[in-house]
Amino acid sequence: MSRSIRLAVIPGDGIGPEVVAQGLKVLSAALPSDVKLETREYDLGARRWHATGETLPDAELASLKDHDAILLGAIGDPSVPSGVLERGLLLKLRFAFDHYVNLRPSRLFPGTATPLAGRPEIDFVVVREGTEGPYVGNGGSLRTGTPAEVATEVSLNTAYGVERVVRDAYERAQARPRKKLTLVHKNNVLVHAGHLWKNIFDRVGREYPEVTTDYLHVDAATIFFVTRPERFDVIVTDNLFGDILTDLAAAVTGGIGLAASGNINPAGTYPSMFEPVHGSAPDIAGTGKADPTATVLSVALLLRHLGHAPEAARIEAAVEADLAARDGSPRTTEQVGDALAARVTG
Amino acid sequence: MSRSIRLAVIPGDGIGPEVVAQGLKVLSAALPSDVKLETREYDLGARRWHATGETLPDAELASLKDHDAILLGAIGDPSVPSGVLERGLLLKLRFAFDHYVNLRPSRLFPGTATPLAGRPEIDFVVVREGTEGPYVGNGGSLRTGTPAEVATEVSLNTAYGVERVVRDAYERAQARPRKKLTLVHKNNVLVHAGHLWKNIFDRVGREYPEVTTDYLHVDAATIFFVTRPERFDVIVTDNLFGDILTDLAAAVTGGIGLAASGNINPAGTYPSMFEPVHGSAPDIAGTGKADPTATVLSVALLLRHLGHAPEAARIEAAVEADLAARDGSPRTTEQVGDALAARVTG
Ligand SMILES: CC(C)[C@H](C(=O)O)[C@@H](O)C(=O)O
Ligand SMILES: CC(C)[C@H](C(=O)O)[C@@H](O)C(=O)O
Repeated sequence: MSRSIRLAVIPGDGIGPEVVAQGLKVLSAALPSDVKLETREYDLGARRWHATGETLPDAELASLKDHDAILLGAIGDPSVPSGVLERGLLLKLRFAFDHYVNLRPSRLFPGTATPLAGRPEIDFVVVREGTEGPYVGNGGSLRTGTPAEVATEVSLNTAYGVERVVRDAYERAQARPRKKLTLVHKNNVLVHAGHLWKNIFDRVGREYPEVTTDYLHVDAATIFFVTRPERFDVIVTDNLFGDILTDLAAAVTGGIGLAASGNINPAGTYPSMFEPVHGSAPDIAGTGKADPTATVLSVALLLRHLGHAPEAARIEAAVEADLAARDGSPRTTEQVGDALAARVTG
Repeated sequence: MSRSIRLAVIPGDGIGPEVVAQGLKVLSAALPSDVKLETREYDLGARRWHATGETLPDAELASLKDHDAILLGAIGDPSVPSGVLERGLLLKLRFAFDHYVNLRPSRLFPGTATPLAGRPEIDFVVVREGTEGPYVGNGGSLRTGTPAEVATEVSLNTAYGVERVVRDAYERAQARPRKKLTLVHKNNVLVHAGHLWKNIFDRVGREYPEVTTDYLHVDAATIFFVTRPERFDVIVTDNLFGDILTDLAAAVTGGIGLAASGNINPAGTYPSMFEPVHGSAPDIAGTGKADPTATVLSVALLLRHLGHAPEAARIEAAVEADLAARDGSPRTTEQVGDALAARVTG
């Protein structure tokens, strides 16, 4: 646990700056008075790209590295061609900082809405691989734009990359009361990548005899997310399957307005990055309608990652209490932030 | 419309033979008396593989080709290693017979259960590409089983393959009252394949000015499947995304027990294959508990494909009436088949 936190902040586009402001407010409220918080803001995202054509210059990447963690609001705008900011900024950060654990807790808090009838109990964590699979950018196209075009995308999977994320997932499962870990893949079709994942999952599992395990194909897993989400405790999965599953998980647990995520480099070689799962929502930017709760929950993940577990728990308890107390009357982004900060301060 | 149907039947494993028997019963009941039905059964699946090691010998593939259509029950058993029957039989058929349109209607019929609160209106069709993408089997692994293993899966996408399925989807959208087509992909990450899909989708769209279109990333689409499924009319998507989305679609429309599918070669060069989406369900095989409705709905797709649209509609109406009349008292597989046949004859 460090007695000072050097935090890089990327507010980003749309509602990003608004929710980040509230996240920082709650972070300050939660920190013990002897922990010094230093923040530095980075102007990255759609605005910057339009102004300069830059997504993430090397100098800024180097400067970002010089922090304990990164808090990101949201990146993206319809005015930027699809892929430019994703590949040039968001994924570049994940790969450059070796964020191989993409952590996404999914909990249906009391008081929140779910599209599922009967309000099942939902409390699981998805450990999504963050640096391999179809996200590596190893694709190409030949005779682009002609009737003879061929386009490829290559999913790369290594024993090195799979083992470290699988191990992380076992550790997390081991630390939870139910101690259950589910591997999700599609090993009946993607047989090479699938066998690699399954073999490593089974082999590492022998080191965790207390953890019960099972395997689901990704199509079957999506069914269970809506019919029996209570069956899940910890899930470990590939980068692309994790992307799909966690958005579905967010949808059944009250919406992406509540979903937090961490892009984690467990070794600590590079700063980890924390961000709400929702996007920049340009349609509501500036209206004060954005819910900062996902950002605040991302701040809790950030604190836990930096060794401030009690403060993280206080923030999560504040969110839980705030959600339970909601009566449907509208509050602004700032009012929600104030309410959470007040609860955290106590 | 042919006045005789030469139908190849692959009952398969688990509950496959039971549901296929009812499917054939309803098919016979629906056919006009002057249409001759000739069926030939093929012994393929887990049993055959255990007995002979064969999945789909060339001679049988050639013989299957000599039919107007194929009806398949279910393939698979936990005793067979994952991938053997999928790649060796199911996918082999799709590729050999160029089943490039994988058609999966999703409708929430009155009287059926859904895990979604509020019972939204659901009536959409997924047109899943069936012969390209990550399903092509172009992967491999190096240093298999060692800590230095690398495994790849290659997604192959061609203008030829994408254009024909996109065109099919536009035709289907054009023929439906809402005339709406949604492309689902992940073109912000899988940029090469994604751009190929999006460019062709936009270009072909100019030939269908009456069809309104939109685009969703696959992660966003899964959210809408549970929060706003009524927004969808026709969806066209990649092989793998389609696999995931259609199982989710089945889950929100009453379960895979009701989901029908067609593996279609629209040109008619090869026989198309129709099958329920559910698997072989070995746990309930032989108990009479399997619901043959998905197979019966697959028979309706088969009839429509062969030009017997009125008969297909009669079967669908029979299913709709049967579902609406269900009162929760258990019926055997055969009783459901009898009830449907009676309604069709009617
Ligand atoms: C924006 C995009 C690159 C990203 C992803 O696909 O990983 C997002 O969907 C997410 O889940 O964080
Ligand atoms: C069994 C498997 C090969 C198949 C697929 O992935 O396409 C199945 O899940 C389906 O959806 O028809």
